Amino acid sequence: MLKTYALLCCLLIATNFYSQTDEEVLKKIYYNTLTNGKSYEWLNYLSNQIGSRLSGSLGAERAVDFTKEELDKLGLDQVWLQPVMVPKWVRGAKEYAYIETKPGKTNIVNICALGGSVATPSLGIKAHIVEVKTFEELEALGKANIEGKIVFFNRPMQADLIQTHEAYGGCVNQRYQGAVQAAKYGAIGVIVRSMNLRLDDLPHTGSMTYDDLPVEKRIPSAAISTNDAEILSTMLQLDKNIKLYFKQNCQQLKDVQSYNVIGEITGSQYPKEYMLVGGHLDSWDLGDGSHDDGAGVVQSMEVLRLFKECGIKPKRSIRVVLFMNEENGLRGAKKYAEEAKQKNENHIVALESDAGGFTPRGFSFECSDANFNQVLSWQHLFKPYLIHYFEKGGSGSDVGPLKTDKNVVAGLRPDSQRYFDHHHASNDTFDAVNKRELELGAGTMTALMYLFDKYGIK
Amino acid sequence: MLKTYALLCCLLIATNFYSQTDEEVLKKIYYNTLTNGKSYEWLNYLSNQIGSRLSGSLGAERAVDFTKEELDKLGLDQVWLQPVMVPKWVRGAKEYAYIETKPGKTNIVNICALGGSVATPSLGIKAHIVEVKTFEELEALGKANIEGKIVFFNRPMQADLIQTHEAYGGCVNQRYQGAVQAAKYGAIGVIVRSMNLRLDDLPHTGSMTYDDLPVEKRIPSAAISTNDAEILSTMLQLDKNIKLYFKQNCQQLKDVQSYNVIGEITGSQYPKEYMLVGGHLDSWDLGDGSHDDGAGVVQSMEVLRLFKECGIKPKRSIRVVLFMNEENGLRGAKKYAEEAKQKNENHIVALESDAGGFTPRGFSFECSDANFNQVLSWQHLFKPYLIHYFEKGGSGSDVGPLKTDKNVVAGLRPDSQRYFDHHHASNDTFDAVNKRELELGAGTMTALMYLFDKYGIK
Repeated sequence: MLKTYALLCCLLIATNFYSQTDEEVLKKIYYNTLTNGKSYEWLNYLSNQIGSRLSGSLGAERAVDFTKEELDKLGLDQVWLQPVMVPKWVRGAKEYAYIETKPGKTNIVNICALGGSVATPSLGIKAHIVEVKTFEELEALGKANIEGKIVFFNRPMQADLIQTHEAYGGCVNQRYQGAVQAAKYGAIGVIVRSMNLRLDDLPHTGSMTYDDLPVEKRIPSAAISTNDAEILSTMLQLDKNIKLYFKQNCQQLKDVQSYNVIGEITGSQYPKEYMLVGGHLDSWDLGDGSHDDGAGVVQSMEVLRLFKECGIKPKRSIRVVLFMNEENGLRGAKKYAEEAKQKNENHIVALESDAGGFTPRGFSFECSDANFNQVLSWQHLFKPYLIHYFEKGGSGSDVGPLKTDKNVVAGLRPDSQRYFDHHHASNDTFDAVNKRELELGAGTMTALMYLFDKYGIK
Repeated sequence: MLKTYALLCCLLIATNFYSQTDEEVLKKIYYNTLTNGKSYEWLNYLSNQIGSRLSGSLGAERAVDFTKEELDKLGLDQVWLQPVMVPKWVRGAKEYAYIETKPGKTNIVNICALGGSVATPSLGIKAHIVEVKTFEELEALGKANIEGKIVFFNRPMQADLIQTHEAYGGCVNQRYQGAVQAAKYGAIGVIVRSMNLRLDDLPHTGSMTYDDLPVEKRIPSAAISTNDAEILSTMLQLDKNIKLYFKQNCQQLKDVQSYNVIGEITGSQYPKEYMLVGGHLDSWDLGDGSHDDGAGVVQSMEVLRLFKECGIKPKRSIRVVLFMNEENGLRGAKKYAEEAKQKNENHIVALESDAGGFTPRGFSFECSDANFNQVLSWQHLFKPYLIHYFEKGGSGSDVGPLKTDKNVVAGLRPDSQRYFDHHHASNDTFDAVNKRELELGAGTMTALMYLFDKYGIK
């Protein structure tokens, strides 16, 4: 009798849950994350107890352990580590640079090596500077004007673009390809204006490539702050003969073992249909990577916690994947996609949060019109939470490799105005993240996943 | 011949401007404010060279002079000061408070007097504490439990409300009416939990009233930080016999002369139809009032600058009004509305920015359905600027008195998540304002005013 009663109770509770409207479930999700969320506490630990998490670093290793432990506590169906070899680049001693106007007369410059760059010779390099804004300008100047000099890429981010990642997209080739391009014409080093819309003193790092340039032709590559870029440019207009000195002793070490961290709630009806939420666990080394991408990590973890906490028992399997090495190699994402393909895992939807822990505005989707129209039919559910942005567009670096012609990959789109103030710089720190903004992002991701679970894809 | 040619040129330029599409004009407005705006520079001066601007203070006086001078430089058709008498309340020496657990054993509490409060006796007051969350609880406790004690209002802002000003609305009666209510039952002082959604150490001031309470019955009233409210509440649960000591020597002085600052571009076709943009020039005294409401002041000034700069020659008259004394009296707003009524000035639209200099999300309108529908027909023009929020709702304290049954009053609605982290506290400072977010707000206000000028109201 007692057993029957208990069973009846369970049934009633279950029926009760399924009888909830989407509006009610979303309300519960947002209520829970705003009043009882874990994301901010997790981010506090990740940022302030662990700190920066460059691939191959002790921080990255500790972040793997910490997030696995926390996922273990959530009572998911499975939590595991997926091994992946990652590059290990180390910055070494703090970089040093100055502008020399006359022998002995110098102005200090705020500088940092770009990720993947080679070191300068141990005494540093000092040379005349050639300022350019584009690769075309560089080509026009040619070897005669560039050989033996330091090339200074100084194309600013375009302030009139409302979406700041578009402004980033319009500039970042200077940072990523600058060394390869300048080396063609015999430059001995490259400095680039930081990818930052503000004028301030912080240099912003980020990845760069040498493509297939032989080791002996690789030239050191660094970023200077936007204020210093302005000053240097002005000084060059007054006197072409000034020189720049810089010194860095970063190096690329051997690849090391690391991991993607994965947790799963297995679906009750369609366990072979996977829904993925994720962010990347690694960060650059200058700040503590709170926005890029500690926020995405803890928001993704929070999605699964909220499913449990709100009693949402998914029909489909939902996974949180904390990718390793997005910043300088994307090895974790490639590894995950490769194994998913081998195992024939059907990822119907994959959502990444990797644009900062700011107030969420909506999502950007890569998917068919049919799937996009389904998403648009859910738009009204998000209105009370001030989520208005539902557009087709890019998703996220880590979920991109999972795209098929049938599925949906998406990116959370938070407010982007302040993102590049902090991106890859020493001020990407916990205090720059607002608790509510972070939590609203987690709630918004959870709401979307709940709807995909309930209605599937087209 | 030369004259004819010049006239022809002018005509061509004019024709050219009017032949621009709304899309093109909005693009020009946003481009200009994001690449060449003045709002951030003005705010820097207002915040860092002048600082806080409580009504009747030297800061308020200097802010009147500064903003008038800057408006004078814009080449508007008229700039003038509108005299208004304002209250002058001064904080005096920094307040001091502690919790006494045993004689001689004390915990310091972060406290600030509420604006308009009387001082404590010069040696301060020390008494047992009664914690309540509502006026109903207070009533239920009655004189027997309250007389001779300090009432502690501790109802937190509701974290699950997405619009933070709704959470504020649900709490602020504790601050505004707390003293009157507690005095009824013989309390000797009132402390209130700061109106802040974060847990931190900063007390937030704000206005309070004594209604018609005779002077001798007025009790001192102060705010404590949210962290201290949590601590005090916990300590009270452990021991009802602890006491609170606090001391403040604020006072209400005689009213002093001050001014609203007003600038106008006179309309070319309907000069008697006024469009108003405004913010309030006064601020609380703890921070420098950058968000509340330095942002609204400089954004409103920027609207008129952008009209000039973008060559928008309004058909209707547009005014910027920088209201004095919003925080503790609303005297400026009342004065402006009173004179407008006397002069029979037809304010067809009045828009206030007084919700912080954060990323603009849209507007809230008080108007007829016909006017609201017209606004909705413009909504698509704002989409490229990520402005999605167009709702009916409250406008702003300073423009409220201008509401008629025919016109439109509105409030700019920026993202509200961080607003109450800074509101009326010592961290309402310039560094908490992002340049782009501020500028986007100014652009958004200008765009709306341009449309109202072109299409009028219904």
